[in-house]
Amino acid sequence: MVLSLRAATPSRSLGFQAAIGLRAAPQAPRALLHNLTTPASIEGAPQTKSALPFAAGGLFAVRALAVGRRRSRAVRQIFGLRAASGVAAPAKPLRLLLLDPLSRELLERLASLGAEVQCRGGGETVVEALLRVRPQAVVVRSSLLQVEELEQAASGCLELQLVMRAGAGVDNIAVEALGSRGVVVANAEGANAVAVAELTMAHLLNLDRRLSDQVESLRRGEWRRLEFAGALGLYGRTLAVLGVGHIGREVIKRARAFGMEVRAWSRSLTVEEATALGVLRCSSAEEAARGAHALSVHLPLAPSTQGLVGQKLLRELRPGALVVNMSRGGVVDEAALVAAVAERGLRAGLDVFAHEPGASASTFDDEAIRSSAGIFCTHHTGARTEQAAEAVENAVLAAVSALLDGRRIPGKIV
Amino acid sequence: MVLSLRAATPSRSLGFQAAIGLRAAPQAPRALLHNLTTPASIEGAPQTKSALPFAAGGLFAVRALAVGRRRSRAVRQIFGLRAASGVAAPAKPLRLLLLDPLSRELLERLASLGAEVQCRGGGETVVEALLRVRPQAVVVRSSLLQVEELEQAASGCLELQLVMRAGAGVDNIAVEALGSRGVVVANAEGANAVAVAELTMAHLLNLDRRLSDQVESLRRGEWRRLEFAGALGLYGRTLAVLGVGHIGREVIKRARAFGMEVRAWSRSLTVEEATALGVLRCSSAEEAARGAHALSVHLPLAPSTQGLVGQKLLRELRPGALVVNMSRGGVVDEAALVAAVAERGLRAGLDVFAHEPGASASTFDDEAIRSSAGIFCTHHTGARTEQAAEAVENAVLAAVSALLDGRRIPGKIV
Repeated sequence: MVLSLRAATPSRSLGFQAAIGLRAAPQAPRALLHNLTTPASIEGAPQTKSALPFAAGGLFAVRALAVGRRRSRAVRQIFGLRAASGVAAPAKPLRLLLLDPLSRELLERLASLGAEVQCRGGGETVVEALLRVRPQAVVVRSSLLQVEELEQAASGCLELQLVMRAGAGVDNIAVEALGSRGVVVANAEGANAVAVAELTMAHLLNLDRRLSDQVESLRRGEWRRLEFAGALGLYGRTLAVLGVGHIGREVIKRARAFGMEVRAWSRSLTVEEATALGVLRCSSAEEAARGAHALSVHLPLAPSTQGLVGQKLLRELRPGALVVNMSRGGVVDEAALVAAVAERGLRAGLDVFAHEPGASASTFDDEAIRSSAGIFCTHHTGARTEQAAEAVENAVLAAVSALLDGRRIPGKIV
Repeated sequence: MVLSLRAATPSRSLGFQAAIGLRAAPQAPRALLHNLTTPASIEGAPQTKSALPFAAGGLFAVRALAVGRRRSRAVRQIFGLRAASGVAAPAKPLRLLLLDPLSRELLERLASLGAEVQCRGGGETVVEALLRVRPQAVVVRSSLLQVEELEQAASGCLELQLVMRAGAGVDNIAVEALGSRGVVVANAEGANAVAVAELTMAHLLNLDRRLSDQVESLRRGEWRRLEFAGALGLYGRTLAVLGVGHIGREVIKRARAFGMEVRAWSRSLTVEEATALGVLRCSSAEEAARGAHALSVHLPLAPSTQGLVGQKLLRELRPGALVVNMSRGGVVDEAALVAAVAERGLRAGLDVFAHEPGASASTFDDEAIRSSAGIFCTHHTGARTEQAAEAVENAVLAAVSALLDGRRIPGKIV
């Protein structure tokens, strides 16, 4: 068996090369790893998992070919081949293009499946990358893969079979155009749900206990025990959940374990599903909010949900109620929320904003939100946990693996 | 039926008098409430629930007597009598002394059981209150009721049957001395457990997501999405729980709903109980901590637990692990914790401290703790929720009710 690795930037590839061997088969005999890579490269191998740098010229081409008949168990382990099957990686590995930086570990695992993984280089456009790699599969996180890109790179997409979104939403992808060309589009829906649900509960608890205020106060050297003693407690209180998709369900599971009574509203929620989830099904968002101690929003942004949580709905909540929005800023009417916080003592936890700073921004300028003592904000980090990243990567691997094996692609949209 | 209310300070009693009628029977016909109280007093009734003020002279004596045969359903509701029984409050109501401020609602509910409730006045000592009221039952939160007080007020305690601690610990009560005199001592063990477990989860989530740092940063107008994206996520991670009493069990329930793998250590935990709780039973605290992502302490402070969470145990945790202490400051060796936070990237959430500021203090002076960026502190507010206060009050009511009915006192210690 021969491991062939080539890289545009040889100095970078040395460490990476060794990392592949070491990380893919940590139990493999050291001597074997030395046979696969050079001792020097092992020494310099970066051991920490990190997103691949997209510096200019930092392109990696990883080709894992299994040639010859010497296939020890350890070698098979490295390439993720089942010992029983005895099947080597395909003679013509799948050309896979990663349009956005993803973890080094994912690249190694994709390579171990038998894919030839190439990453878009720094400064390279999506179209240029498509024309260079002529991929059979594309993995995309935030890059645009719209009709415009597809048309410009048409000749580079002739063999394209799969576009995999490394996340849930597919706003950045021309789903229909791809589908009409026979390309499977799939996503990792639900992979972020646990992470968002955890931050939702973090916000709910923070609002009730004013934990962040307590932390800040004690850092200033204050001791204000009585002032911070006014929490309500979540147990036995009522939580209205708007939207019962993957995230809503994970929130419901946790809120129920806290002894909260959950009322849920969702366009498609049936009475049977509600009963199975242990929640009360409401026929409108207002009905769910009526008299509730807390409200959490897990709806997609759409014309029908734009501004749904506005003055009318907020008035249905109890005075002092807690409002959490981890979905999209536009679902909540922020002016109405700021007013309700000031006038009815509501407290709000927001992870998303109607006017959210761009990817390269470093300031948050919405004065009304950031200066309200009753509003507690995080930096759109709901889905940003390692656990969520791992779940997304597993979904990507499952899709690529299914493509290689000719099975149905999990998470298939078209 | 006649409602007789008298108060040492008539001006205060008017509002209070009306509040009793309004809160005890919110569904009762308004006209009926007017018959029980004066229209003027209803108008001035404070509607919010609050602890009774203990200003000098602010003594209340509430006597609820049911006289005569006109007992409409609404009137019975006011006094909490069961419609079916038709039994009025006892002819000689139980003389009950509250040594610490408790909620107005509790007083009303105790009165509705048929107790004559008196509160200790501002400036009045425990001994003076005992000698004045000569109580049959005493409810105590933080006041001292030690041998010294009992001896000084001996003549006032001749009829004492019950001392009820409105909380869990009984350090402030001469349990043995009271027991030897045939007085039942009971507490509200477990009533605070849910509140402490909620703050425990709040701290765990805060440590993982750095929520309080995020809130503070955004308040300063910063947008640092990538910086705050490094959370691990709780799902699938390992939590070591030290101490599996009421609080530990509530924490386990919630952590399990978050998909955490829980390892527990407690002196008395059996394998069967551990299995029923869905946790792995460990034979030592170190074993529980070994390789864990997070650790939460729910042990009482005792010679055997003093400094238990020290350098040796903290070294067993993974680098970057989360440590939460909501029990007592002395259980954790704070110097070792501060060092582990600095050296191994641990993060800690503390609600209790070895050198905790006194009740009247307004500053927190432990520089090592408050200036550590990896330590996040709350103001010993673990048990301070309305839900916990309600649970404690329900325990007090259950004890007094059992005393009145001649049943076994729930929460009985001696």
